[in-house]
Amino acid sequence: MALTPARTMPGVLELLPLDQIAFQRMLDTIRRNYERFGFLPIETPVIEYSDVLLTKTGGETERQVYFVQSTGALNAGKVDEGMPELALRFDLTVPLARYVAEHERDLSFPFRRYQMQRVYRGERAQRGRFREFYQCDIDVIGKDALSVRYDAEIPAVIYSVFRELAIGPFTIHLNNRKLMRGYFESLGIADSEQQMLVLREVDKLDKRGADYVRETLTGEAFGLPAEVAAKILAFVQVRSTSLQDALGKLDALGQGPEAMEQGRAELKEVLRLIHAFGVPETHYALNLSIARGLDYYTGTVYETTLNEHPQIGSICSGGRYENLASQYTRSQLPGVGISIGLTRLYWQLRDAGLINTAASTVDVLVTQMDEAQLPAYLALAGELRHAGIATEVVLEGGKLGKQFKYADRAGIRFVIVLGEDELAKGVVTVKDLRREDQFEVPRSELIKTLRVELEQAAVMG
Amino acid sequence: MALTPARTMPGVLELLPLDQIAFQRMLDTIRRNYERFGFLPIETPVIEYSDVLLTKTGGETERQVYFVQSTGALNAGKVDEGMPELALRFDLTVPLARYVAEHERDLSFPFRRYQMQRVYRGERAQRGRFREFYQCDIDVIGKDALSVRYDAEIPAVIYSVFRELAIGPFTIHLNNRKLMRGYFESLGIADSEQQMLVLREVDKLDKRGADYVRETLTGEAFGLPAEVAAKILAFVQVRSTSLQDALGKLDALGQGPEAMEQGRAELKEVLRLIHAFGVPETHYALNLSIARGLDYYTGTVYETTLNEHPQIGSICSGGRYENLASQYTRSQLPGVGISIGLTRLYWQLRDAGLINTAASTVDVLVTQMDEAQLPAYLALAGELRHAGIATEVVLEGGKLGKQFKYADRAGIRFVIVLGEDELAKGVVTVKDLRREDQFEVPRSELIKTLRVELEQAAVMG
Repeated sequence: MALTPARTMPGVLELLPLDQIAFQRMLDTIRRNYERFGFLPIETPVIEYSDVLLTKTGGETERQVYFVQSTGALNAGKVDEGMPELALRFDLTVPLARYVAEHERDLSFPFRRYQMQRVYRGERAQRGRFREFYQCDIDVIGKDALSVRYDAEIPAVIYSVFRELAIGPFTIHLNNRKLMRGYFESLGIADSEQQMLVLREVDKLDKRGADYVRETLTGEAFGLPAEVAAKILAFVQVRSTSLQDALGKLDALGQGPEAMEQGRAELKEVLRLIHAFGVPETHYALNLSIARGLDYYTGTVYETTLNEHPQIGSICSGGRYENLASQYTRSQLPGVGISIGLTRLYWQLRDAGLINTAASTVDVLVTQMDEAQLPAYLALAGELRHAGIATEVVLEGGKLGKQFKYADRAGIRFVIVLGEDELAKGVVTVKDLRREDQFEVPRSELIKTLRVELEQAAVMG
Repeated sequence: MALTPARTMPGVLELLPLDQIAFQRMLDTIRRNYERFGFLPIETPVIEYSDVLLTKTGGETERQVYFVQSTGALNAGKVDEGMPELALRFDLTVPLARYVAEHERDLSFPFRRYQMQRVYRGERAQRGRFREFYQCDIDVIGKDALSVRYDAEIPAVIYSVFRELAIGPFTIHLNNRKLMRGYFESLGIADSEQQMLVLREVDKLDKRGADYVRETLTGEAFGLPAEVAAKILAFVQVRSTSLQDALGKLDALGQGPEAMEQGRAELKEVLRLIHAFGVPETHYALNLSIARGLDYYTGTVYETTLNEHPQIGSICSGGRYENLASQYTRSQLPGVGISIGLTRLYWQLRDAGLINTAASTVDVLVTQMDEAQLPAYLALAGELRHAGIATEVVLEGGKLGKQFKYADRAGIRFVIVLGEDELAKGVVTVKDLRREDQFEVPRSELIKTLRVELEQAAVMG
């Protein structure tokens, strides 16, 4: 029989088990922190009705959607009659909107949900671009209104998550779309379309430099006065170094129109509350260049960067929006939320050498020295498992050396040998493959000993 | 703007948060037990190449596949040129085969993997039929050979999982395809095709009764002698009540051809070893009617049923197969595994009233009695979270009564009140909404007190 080459499509991240364990640990850490802040889990189907999924979008997103057809639909020749009925979700925000609208009467508001699932985008195949990736989202959704205080809780969650992920120092950058909008208005750029175009140019600051951006803004396309361009550049380059500095820099912007005053007041309250939430001043900053999805966010916006790896870009972004689900319900549902794109983050961290293959989830391998003693090995393994210690037993005999080699290759740290001698003496020999050490321990103390070792390893990483 | 009705397609199970928590607890329990037995996690992409996915199958499965097309492919008019390039996985076994073949050189054998992900089948819409559902699989894959002892480990895992899921008494039923095949040969039914047809009739025993099956077997279609039909019916009705009984009943089948002797020897070894693995005799039994996927399994086969809910059918099935990935690699990869279809199981258990909505993952709600004290509330919440206690803070003020009502509706058990009195006295008032009780506790002892309560609740369920 001819073989079919075993392969997956480009743009998916499939991991070997020890890498999968490292990835799973990150997912677990994020989930634990989301739960600690009182967010509730939901999961939604990967497949949604196309008309539900594509109400708001257009442009880029729609071009990247994966449509789904059952064999039945294909056979019935239904594929050419316009848009297929079903599609894969491309983010978790649209499904959240649909979920909240659909279950509105069964939910308590403010509705605090987390959702950690995969999403799908038909990206062009390219290094570091994923067609299937995890998003880990939290959102707080209010009914009719939602206090700006919730905008301050989000950075507290971000801080908690990334501190525990332990991937190096990071900064949560904050801005406010109203402040931005108001400031642009004060410079005579009142049209939101034009604001967007200007911001798109400003976004090129890092890559192209200030001169390039200044020339574009004062050039033919925009025709802004040099003075206005200079003010814009000065505005978007505002960064704070402490809470006091942030409040001072916000004041120094001078008086402005209503939107600007509102944005400033919100930002000040949020900055102060973040402090009350216990986030150290070293970990958050005012950054007036942050804009994010211009047609979606309406107030506070966030980005998070790793101080020592700016090239990775934002690792956690989001903001405040006016109305989550206007396409599905007449209820006013303001909200605030963030998303961590974990697949990309994991891939980049691994690429940068910041995360390694994990130790195995298997704590102990019970070797098979003597086939006749298999029941004794199984009984021992049963005791260990009962104590919560993940244990594998060698069921197929063979040389001990080969069994050790297997454990080593599989990343299992502790190997137990139980031979005639040990059985007679009521002891167990434990080989610690990481420390390249071995010791004898009375059978009755094995669990206690291993627990201490494993707890130490968990703390030490 | 006209609203789009917020809805999902039939055949998906979308849960409200407290149900999602109950579901998540089951997933966690299964995963914990899989890990305890030394299985390693993998995840594979939901989308696979169609030619990879559909090498072996045909018939039913192929008719139920969901094909996937990116917008680009649709626009390019590629949809009518035969089978689309991509499809959603319909189980976790084919992706496992592809994974092992693709990563063979990077894996250690025996390769013990668990995988808990969703799969997709374009089923007709019908109550209790799911188009998207979780499978929770384990498999042990050998290179060239795999001892039959691994067949005995699987029931030990099943026992461990379902004991901890605590959904009532259950029985793991065992049979062996070689024993079956050999016995049929001894009755003159040597052709495997015909064996399959006979077994398909025998499968109707529960629904149609013995008379109906006997008539069919002796009737025109099969033309078997009455004596042979009687033997077949007697064989498939064999059940054991203990290990000794099982061994005795296997011996009582009498001598048979080689396949039968091999199957009998395997079953005996497996039954004895399951005992050595510590599975109580009350929880496993010989059941010679179990056949399972006849073209796939070649040795031991398993089904698991809830003693008090036989109508639910098998809640965990699987078996031994000769060669996992012959369509992708020339390596011989024998294996043994099982699958739990958790979405269906959860749905049925809930339907039967065996599982309820869970308590919230949120342990504590810190109320807002006095807006000016918000920093104190945030500090308290920070302490609780630091101690691992999931805590939500009311950030938007309002009447205390309304805040209590929110907690009650959201399934949060403990509500903390910190007013002027409490702050002055250095205490905290804790309302226990489940016990409808409230008590004061010194601030310094709050965490200890809550931990004791929460641990008790976790143990008591």
